[in-house]
Order: sequence, then structure tokens, then C-alpha cells
Amino acid sequence: MTEWNERPGRIRRAPENFLGPAEIEAVKQGRRDFLRKAFLSASAALGAGAGAAALAQTAPAGDPAILNLPEWSKTLGMPVATRGYGMPSQYEAGLIRRQSPGLTQTAASSVAFTPLQGMFGIITPSGLHFERHHQGWHDIDPSKHRLMINGLVRTPMVFTMEDLLRLPPVSRIHFIECGANTGMEWGNVAVPTVQYTHGMLSCSEYTGVRLIDLLEMCGADLKKGRYLLAEGADGSSLTRTIPMELVESGEVLLAYGQNGEMLRPENGYPLRLVVPGVQGVSWVKWLRRVEVGDKPWGTKDEAVHYIDLMPDGIHRQYTSLQEAKSVITSPSGGQILLDKGYYNITGLAWSGRGKIKRVDVSTDGGINWRPARLETPILSKALTRFNIDWVWDGKPAILQSRCVDESGYVQPTYGQLRAVRGTRSIYHNNAIQSWLVNEAGEVSNVQVL
Amino acid sequence: MTEWNERPGRIRRAPENFLGPAEIEAVKQGRRDFLRKAFLSASAALGAGAGAAALAQTAPAGDPAILNLPEWSKTLGMPVATRGYGMPSQYEAGLIRRQSPGLTQTAASSVAFTPLQGMFGIITPSGLHFERHHQGWHDIDPSKHRLMINGLVRTPMVFTMEDLLRLPPVSRIHFIECGANTGMEWGNVAVPTVQYTHGMLSCSEYTGVRLIDLLEMCGADLKKGRYLLAEGADGSSLTRTIPMELVESGEVLLAYGQNGEMLRPENGYPLRLVVPGVQGVSWVKWLRRVEVGDKPWGTKDEAVHYIDLMPDGIHRQYTSLQEAKSVITSPSGGQILLDKGYYNITGLAWSGRGKIKRVDVSTDGGINWRPARLETPILSKALTRFNIDWVWDGKPAILQSRCVDESGYVQPTYGQLRAVRGTRSIYHNNAIQSWLVNEAGEVSNVQVL
Repeated sequence: MTEWNERPGRIRRAPENFLGPAEIEAVKQGRRDFLRKAFLSASAALGAGAGAAALAQTAPAGDPAILNLPEWSKTLGMPVATRGYGMPSQYEAGLIRRQSPGLTQTAASSVAFTPLQGMFGIITPSGLHFERHHQGWHDIDPSKHRLMINGLVRTPMVFTMEDLLRLPPVSRIHFIECGANTGMEWGNVAVPTVQYTHGMLSCSEYTGVRLIDLLEMCGADLKKGRYLLAEGADGSSLTRTIPMELVESGEVLLAYGQNGEMLRPENGYPLRLVVPGVQGVSWVKWLRRVEVGDKPWGTKDEAVHYIDLMPDGIHRQYTSLQEAKSVITSPSGGQILLDKGYYNITGLAWSGRGKIKRVDVSTDGGINWRPARLETPILSKALTRFNIDWVWDGKPAILQSRCVDESGYVQPTYGQLRAVRGTRSIYHNNAIQSWLVNEAGEVSNVQVL
Repeated sequence: MTEWNERPGRIRRAPENFLGPAEIEAVKQGRRDFLRKAFLSASAALGAGAGAAALAQTAPAGDPAILNLPEWSKTLGMPVATRGYGMPSQYEAGLIRRQSPGLTQTAASSVAFTPLQGMFGIITPSGLHFERHHQGWHDIDPSKHRLMINGLVRTPMVFTMEDLLRLPPVSRIHFIECGANTGMEWGNVAVPTVQYTHGMLSCSEYTGVRLIDLLEMCGADLKKGRYLLAEGADGSSLTRTIPMELVESGEVLLAYGQNGEMLRPENGYPLRLVVPGVQGVSWVKWLRRVEVGDKPWGTKDEAVHYIDLMPDGIHRQYTSLQEAKSVITSPSGGQILLDKGYYNITGLAWSGRGKIKRVDVSTDGGINWRPARLETPILSKALTRFNIDWVWDGKPAILQSRCVDESGYVQPTYGQLRAVRGTRSIYHNNAIQSWLVNEAGEVSNVQVL
């Protein structure tokens, strides 16, 4: 019916990422013991100095060489700069961003999700950064791109990219999450994998100019001008209102750099607004204009879309802050635990309010909780990676993570969230995610209130 | 004569990255005033609400549309997931790693340098990570790769990649620098750009298993076994001795992850040793074996290569720590300052001993120094980005950076370094780099003692 059911191997990674098709098939048919046997035989005690024999296990069958080494240990490899710009291994071709089948009417106004289930650490490689466009993406010629600042300013100005690149820059690591991330899960379980439940989430090191510095150059009236309009140069002319206090904090950037190089076209090249802690729609891509004004604009994408339908039928507007949220990325939906025994549970936590203070993990559906180990650095409004040990006894288990941020905010259960917000919303779902591990080791998406 | 002389535009980025060929030509012929004029006319005061007219400047000449908007503001863009794995803009095609012409006899045993002159922040995108191979690179099938641990251990073991991926991981951001970085500059100015003087330098977020954890699993004899041998699976079987105290610190990793995804083939996929603070040759790629022993091995790549020839003709061996070092990446050699006025000076600092404490910048060849602004996070054994304002008065200037690490070590001048180490070494040159800006705004590599 759906892409992920037809081709399950594609979205499965750890722990079975390196199994071949025959082994995957064996797992699907319930034969999960072969791996343990293989592991035990491979790691059986070897006499010291048995290196050649042990390494020979890696050689293709029938190789006549005495040392039986693999091809890559006996041949000249490829030269440097084979690719001036490098790419992942051919064996990682399944780890890509994917469009959710049937989610949108047209692929130019759609989403491509980041494959969180197979990723490590906190930095999202730009090639796997999620995409969300309103009218498709363009590869804009930077020499023709301009940024105008107008409205309640003494001197409206137009900047070239070169002007912006000469100004004092800052570099900061921040997450970006679409306000609609996990949006299909409000009422019921809708999608099977973490790529589709939480994959509108990425984290990068951004470099650019502080917007407040440019506003000062233009003589912005910060007393009357308490709002900004940010406008994109793509066909949708996407426009969003930004409260001036966010800009005054110095956190809002006009970014051109992402993870050491220029932004990618799909992420706003050559210029995008970075609004740390705020939903992705406000991080206007292909930014061409910033207008200073004295009230919110009420544009289409803040009056009709990106609003929260509450149980009483009234909409919440301008709810842009992304509250504290976390998710276990492995084991996660669509993966299979091949055997009882030790597993590392890993995931991500983040908060639009600042730093993550702690993450607790439950393996029994929320009855008992243990604190996870947080990897460093723990940065404000950035992803934080957590890890925790778990020994699976082969019985059904429900895996959950719950984070707390430095403001003291605790990530809610679905029961707590729905008591306030109902089930008809699209945006700002930050509830605790649950993954069921059944006796066959299959992991699936479930909801626990 | 060399690639960089024939095609200067290629290695020039900020501030003239976005100039077209005609403008570059004008600069080369000494006409550097057109840009100022262009800037002043573009940023002249505009009446409020003049947005459409201002934006119309970005449209191609002769466009009949009333609003005269560029193509990307009037058309449907490309769909999401056009590329499951994204790539840089077509306008950034010049920012690639490059082999140094004539440096080595064969490209399989050579270097491709990271283009530091056009990069931002501290994270190196994996596609631009420098390369240094001894017998070329392979894209190893991870299902066939094995790691053996043997020697002074109770139980020698062989691990599959899946075994390693199931163990508790850590994620950490660290720089890697080849011991031979800046090696051609010991005696005299050898290469014109920062890509070739300092481009064997990158910084990534690594994820993997702590080696000490695996050694404990194997029952390593840490009393007698004070050294490790790390061996790669490529044709060169590159082997390096690692002191056990580095491993006992918990810092040495068996890494499979880099910047959120699996390592790249050119950087050791599927497994490399990460030895923070230590020269790159010890970060053995395609790692297949770790042996515990009671003395250094004295392998070819530590007895004959990667040694420091001292003035008295004696070699220093096992000098693997990368001492504190910094470099200005822009303005840097090969770039042109197009006009007098404000510039942001930016660069990188790092130390194998820990965190960077401060970076000072001189624009007069080392007479006066001002402290630079350090971007956060400042992490141990990672790159630190610095920025500082500078107004160029059009007269010759010599730009230098000098860093101090948390141990108190101060980066030396060439005079100080040579007084101890002479001029005949290849490795571990961490002297202060100088860039001369002449009256035409051309930046070139010079040495100041």
C-alpha cells in the first residue's frame, strides 16, 4: 500500500543495516537466531597471532591467495580528488530523504523527510536536511539576488550578497523543526517510521549576519517597529511576521553559511532567515525583503495556515515557539531487533526555550524511567543526542523518551497534550513518542496516553 | 605554471566570490572602484514602499513583465526530493578540494586539500574533508569488514560492523590535521593559498565506540600493554603505534559516524580510529586490527616517515601531538580586496592540548595585536572560529593570527620555531602565518620571522 510497506529493507538501519537480503528474509520468517550464532563463532577466542586467519574471513569464498585478503587490501585504490566534492558510500544509498507517499497533492509543495533512524550525533549533513517548499525550490544566481530592508526605517537599503558577506558574521549551531512535524499523529498512529513521524527536523551550524546589526544600519524605529515581515523570493512569496524582541536578542540571523559551506538551494541559497527556537516556516528561505512594522501582518501563512485548532473550535495564532520534545530514533518503527540481549537506545531532544536539561527513557510504556546519557556539547536551541543501555529480554516492550528543558518544561504525554489541545490540530505536536517492540523483535509506532 | 596561477578566479572567494568574469577582469586591470560605485548606487536611500522597484533590479534586462521579477519569483520551482541526497548550488562548483599540482608522484598516494578560504564556522562538510591516502581509497563493503583485537589480551576477538554498531556510542566534535600540514612552508614560501598551506585540516562530529571499552571486553593487559598498534585494511596496511594512556583517557574512538551519517569512503568507511589532538596519520582509516603490545612497533610510517629532522641531523620520533596553531582564512592568499574600507578578518584556531583560550590578530606584521572574537562552542581539540573587524586604508598590510591554548602554549613565529627546529623538517609546522595585502589589494603568502 505504501512505500515503506513494500520496501521495508530500505528504511531499516541499525541494528540490521548490514544484513543482506537473504538475512533480512530469514529475519522476516522468524529465524532470528542465526545472527547470534554467527556472532559467537566470529568472536570465539582466537590464539594470539591468529590475525591472518581471522582476517581471511573477510575474503570472498574461493579466493586462491594464500592470505586470502579482500580485494581492497591487495590492490591500488582510487586517487585523491576522484570527486572534488565527496559523496557517501555506495552501501549507504538507502539513507536518503524521502517524500511521504500521498501526503501532498504536488511534489513542489511538499515535504522530504530526514532519515533520523540511521543518523548519529547532532549535526545533519546538508545533503540529508529535510525539505519543505510552498512552491518548489530554485537554484538562485547569488549575483542577482538582493535583500531589501524597508518600512519603519530611516534609510531603506538594498544589499547584494557581497555586501552581506563583508559584514561581521557569527556562527551558531541550531535545530530547525517544521511546525507540522509529527502533525499527522495528533489523532491516531499515521505513519510507521521515525523518518515520517519526526523527520522534519534537522540541525546545522549556521553562519551569517545578525539581523539587528542591519536594522541598526538602516536606522530602524525599534520603539514603534515591534514587528518584522520576512519575505521569500520564490514563487510563493512566503511571508511571516517576526516579533522584534526575538531580533533584539541578537539571535536572529541572515544566514548564508550552513555546515561550513554556503546554504543548499533546497534550504534557501543564497540567504535564509534563522530564527532559533521558532518553527521552520519563519526561517524564510531565499530571503529578499525584511519590512519593519508596528503590528503583525496576518499573512496567509500565519492567518490561515500554521495555526492551532483548539477543542473549542477557536484557532491559536502566532504560536511559533517549538516546545521541548524528544524522540528515540533507534530502535524505532520499521526496525527489527534480531535477538535478545544488549541494545543501545539512542535519540534526540531539543527545545525552543534553550538547553535540554535531562532526558528520561522508559522501556515499559511509561511506568519506570531511567536518565539517559547526554552527549556534549549541549547547546541552546540545538539538538541534543542521548544514549542509554537496554537489555531486551525478548518480551514485548514499549520504548519512550521524555525530556526536560532548562526552563523546567516537561515534554507531555499524548493524554496531557490532548486534554488541552484536542486531536484536530496539525501543528506543534510535541508529545512523547512510543515504539512497541513485539516478541518477534519488530518495532512499530503506537500511541500511549 | 601552476593550477592556481592559471585559474586564479577559482580559488578566490570572499569578498569577490560573486563577481562575474568581466568584473574579475576589471579588478585584475586595476579598476577597483566600480564596486564601490555599484554598492553606493544600490544602497542609496529608497522611499519606503519602493520594494517592487528595488527588487526589479534583480530581474534580467529587457524583461517585459510589469513587476520585472526574476524567473525564480514567477515560476514553479523543483519538487522536494529532486535529489534524495542533496548537493551544493551550481554557483558553488568552484569550492572543492584540490590536489596540489606536482606535490606527489601519484594521485593514489597524495593529498586533496580542504578549501578553507571559502568556508564558514567550524564544521567541515564531509564532501570537502581533506584526503591523504598512502595507497588510494576503496569503498569497502561493510558486511565484509572485520576488526580484530589481539596481542596482550585475554580473549582476542573479531568484530563485525554490526557488533560495533550495537555497542554504546559517544559523539564528539574534533579537528583532524595531517602532521605534514603547512609542511612545504618550513624553509620558504611554497604555495600561494590557504587551501594549500593549511588545507590538510578538517573538523567533524564523530560517533563511535570508545576503544577502551572494547579493550576491556577483550581483557587487555593494561599493565604490560602500554602500546597499541592500529592497522588499516587498504593496500598500504598503514600501521601506527598509539600510547595506551591516550586510550585510557577515553578519548580514542572506533568511529563509524561522521557529521550525522556514516564515514565517507575517502575517510575510512566503515571504520576509522579517532585520536583527538594527534596528527591525522594515527587516525587509521579502514581500521581492521588493533594489537596490544609492550613497546612501540617502529613501523615504516613512524620510523622513516612522520619524523622531525632537527638542526643537528637527529630525528624526533613519535611527535604526534598537534600543537596550538591558527590561520587567517580570509582575507588570504590569492584573494583581492576590491576597495578600501571595512573587512571582516576570519580564521581558525586549534590545539591538540585542549581548548583555545584566545586568538590575537595583527594587521601590521606582528607589531600590534588585538584580541579576536571567538565563536562558540569552544570545544577541546576542535576547531575554533575567530572573527575581527578591520578597516583597510589602502596601504600595504600584513595580516597574522596568533593563538594561545588552555595550557598556556603560545603559537610561535617562524623565527621562534626555526631557532629550535631548523628549516629542514616536513612535519609539525605550527608557525604564525602571514598574508601580505599590497596596495592593489592583492593578498599573497609571505613569511615574517
